[in-house]
Amino acid sequence: MRILGIDPGINLCGYGILEVNPVSDQVVVIEAGVIRVPRSSCIEKRLLNLHRDLEEIFKTLQPDCVGLEQLYSHTQRVQTAIIMGHARGVICLAAAQNDVPIHHFAATSIKKTLTGNGRAPKGQVQLSVARHLGLTEIPDPPDIADALAIALCHYYLNLRNQM
Amino acid sequence: MRILGIDPGINLCGYGILEVNPVSDQVVVIEAGVIRVPRSSCIEKRLLNLHRDLEEIFKTLQPDCVGLEQLYSHTQRVQTAIIMGHARGVICLAAAQNDVPIHHFAATSIKKTLTGNGRAPKGQVQLSVARHLGLTEIPDPPDIADALAIALCHYYLNLRNQM
Repeated sequence: MRILGIDPGINLCGYGILEVNPVSDQVVVIEAGVIRVPRSSCIEKRLLNLHRDLEEIFKTLQPDCVGLEQLYSHTQRVQTAIIMGHARGVICLAAAQNDVPIHHFAATSIKKTLTGNGRAPKGQVQLSVARHLGLTEIPDPPDIADALAIALCHYYLNLRNQM
Repeated sequence: MRILGIDPGINLCGYGILEVNPVSDQVVVIEAGVIRVPRSSCIEKRLLNLHRDLEEIFKTLQPDCVGLEQLYSHTQRVQTAIIMGHARGVICLAAAQNDVPIHHFAATSIKKTLTGNGRAPKGQVQLSVARHLGLTEIPDPPDIADALAIALCHYYLNLRNQM
């Protein structure tokens, strides 16, 4: 079972693939990284770039399911949230085109599952992800840790001990 | 020159194609309608449905450019605006995949161009679109009038007397 966690973003979009061993229930990182989209391009070119990179990830890494963070906006950042919605729409589309089901998680739920604190700062999430996955280095940039955290959240809430 | 106007939506997405005669500068409607997406599906299936229908519109109607309404959110409807952003992202992607440039317009700019009033109600926009295009019937549902209004806005602001 391969879980693809995605931290939606229009400039940097973090992703991480976990593989769950159905016998030992052990979880390992297969690949993790960020899709970088040049800020200089117009929104439609950036979304095209994002979609192409996601297509490659789906085709080469063959995830069985996707964990995706929901967007929430403080009222002072509505326009940013709308633009992030554009990127998240393209991510949802790429998953559906590859017939991979999506599990949606609120940021607070992800943080609470990983750290016990729904309002944990980024640094704590990074440390927690490294600890849960037995990594020798802290995932950086934080977008990678967030993506792995989402995949781990899906594993802990929906898959562990059920495979 | 064919202009595709799109009124972004996740349940109903209005579209309208105008053709501008380069000699007479006359504008006629080639096709207009709505893409209906079943509300019962999950967001990713709805976006897949929207993308497939848009692909068909791009392939069969061959627009040269797209006019697209920008999203604006009152603070009490942030989550709705984020979901609309998902649909708008897929629309932007479909245009970029078909190598068709997009022109983005604020709703107030579209209304002002068509009616002289940036805060005109939907009924006034519908009437105005029918008058500008010499239609014998009012475009209905309003999503179609909005899509034609966006295409007309691009024509009046960027193309008229310049072809």
